[in-house]
Amino acid sequence: MHTTDTETFEEQFAIEQRLVDSVVASFDSTTDPRLKELMQSLTRHLHAFIREVRLSEDEWSNAIAFLTAVGNITDDRRQEFILLSDVLGVSMQTIAVSNPAYEDATESTVFGPFFVEDAPEVTLGGDIAGGATGQPCWIEGTVTDTAGNPVPEARIEVWQNDEDGFYDVQYSDGRVSGRAHLFSDAHGRYRFWGMTPVPYPIPSDGPVGKMLAATNRSPMRVAHLHFMVTADGLRTLVTHIFVAGDPQLERGDSVFGVKDSLIKDFVEQPPGTPTPDGRHIGDRNWARCEFDIVLAPEQI
Amino acid sequence: MHTTDTETFEEQFAIEQRLVDSVVASFDSTTDPRLKELMQSLTRHLHAFIREVRLSEDEWSNAIAFLTAVGNITDDRRQEFILLSDVLGVSMQTIAVSNPAYEDATESTVFGPFFVEDAPEVTLGGDIAGGATGQPCWIEGTVTDTAGNPVPEARIEVWQNDEDGFYDVQYSDGRVSGRAHLFSDAHGRYRFWGMTPVPYPIPSDGPVGKMLAATNRSPMRVAHLHFMVTADGLRTLVTHIFVAGDPQLERGDSVFGVKDSLIKDFVEQPPGTPTPDGRHIGDRNWARCEFDIVLAPEQI
Repeated sequence: MHTTDTETFEEQFAIEQRLVDSVVASFDSTTDPRLKELMQSLTRHLHAFIREVRLSEDEWSNAIAFLTAVGNITDDRRQEFILLSDVLGVSMQTIAVSNPAYEDATESTVFGPFFVEDAPEVTLGGDIAGGATGQPCWIEGTVTDTAGNPVPEARIEVWQNDEDGFYDVQYSDGRVSGRAHLFSDAHGRYRFWGMTPVPYPIPSDGPVGKMLAATNRSPMRVAHLHFMVTADGLRTLVTHIFVAGDPQLERGDSVFGVKDSLIKDFVEQPPGTPTPDGRHIGDRNWARCEFDIVLAPEQI
Repeated sequence: MHTTDTETFEEQFAIEQRLVDSVVASFDSTTDPRLKELMQSLTRHLHAFIREVRLSEDEWSNAIAFLTAVGNITDDRRQEFILLSDVLGVSMQTIAVSNPAYEDATESTVFGPFFVEDAPEVTLGGDIAGGATGQPCWIEGTVTDTAGNPVPEARIEVWQNDEDGFYDVQYSDGRVSGRAHLFSDAHGRYRFWGMTPVPYPIPSDGPVGKMLAATNRSPMRVAHLHFMVTADGLRTLVTHIFVAGDPQLERGDSVFGVKDSLIKDFVEQPPGTPTPDGRHIGDRNWARCEFDIVLAPEQI
């Protein structure tokens, strides 16, 4: 068989395109139109990737082994697939397309792998630390809708790492700390004691950590505290607040979660400064932060 | 904040594009240029998918749960990630871009999830069934290079399902059957007893099977027998032979593996027909098939 390079190229292109078309067509009978759209688009983009990079069989094997390792390390307390989604910006892009900016509603950011259902409730002004170590920090604010109306009884889930950089679920002793839920009061106000957030590395001992190391990427996250706020008739808000002045802000966030509007002042209070609720902190610094939450309507 | 629809659209587009650019840039310091290319291209295509379909957060959660389930069911004997790659045509596309047609070299097809290292050796003319049930089938042919020179001592791995549609590794009793390796003789010839292939469904009790069901896709594979052929200085061939006349050929192959050049005649032999090696088959049909293997050069 003798062919010119051009003929060979065209023949090869046709073989590859026919395969894409066959796989896309295999989803033609999907009853759910949205599922059909998702699978056909996924197919086109996956194949475009393989064709663009001319993926080798060894690289394919490495990808299978990588995903298998991600699956192996994932369990009830560790979600390496979410971590992978996070470091590829997939989580953040999903949030970007799902939560278009709406008036002055608070912006969203990544959910992350460390949320736990059924965190304990604390009353307003209560302490979410639950034994986790860190600088005490008073956080307060309001929950309103975009018309400025207070939102009473909003459920506010908060979770954060301790000063050693770990969430409770990263310890093997089953502790529950640095997480809680509370409800806004009749005027939409909320307040609680947490800890001043500190930067920490995402878990780097698994396949995602190896990928970051292989690509010379830092696993560090900018210091933050997680919020998820739900209220009837309003769009659920998943977000963080970040610490203004955190040097990690300059270096970048390993999951691309930072938005300028979410960077807040955590104001240091010298030892002895009276606390808002009269709590005795002892001879140490504490901090306070205001974060007013604005929820978008459920349907925009 | 009042904006026109166009301004909002442009602002939203810019937010999404900046995120893509940030993630791509995060891989800029990757030392290995190929790894950098792979990660940056993967990032672009993944984000293009999310933006095109406007992936919702619920859909993202479903995708994470799906991948987690694929990971959970994968173990030493079951590789659901390969199955997923297969049914999305990802495996076949990788093979297509990695093994461009070369003169009259035998075409490649999917590796599949059922290969096992260290399958037993059989001598030429031996039986690979190892207790697996099926119609006996004599398979013979030559191994040559593209110049027509015989390739002696080529290692030929063969594996196939039994007449109930299962590979040995799908049974939980640790059996080794329907698989073996053998070597071509000094003239590049090979021959062995196997079984006439029958169509079978890929494992449909896991998340990949659920995905096929949700999209009204058949899990059936066209009847085939797997080959992997390796020889010094020649390109390793991973392929199948398919059975001409198999009605499943019309209905389609769940992993898109069929190529016309790989469809072979399995010629039925009435009971009592003398076998090539004098083996006594008893009062039953058997079949024979010729498959001449042509290996491409290692470097094309």
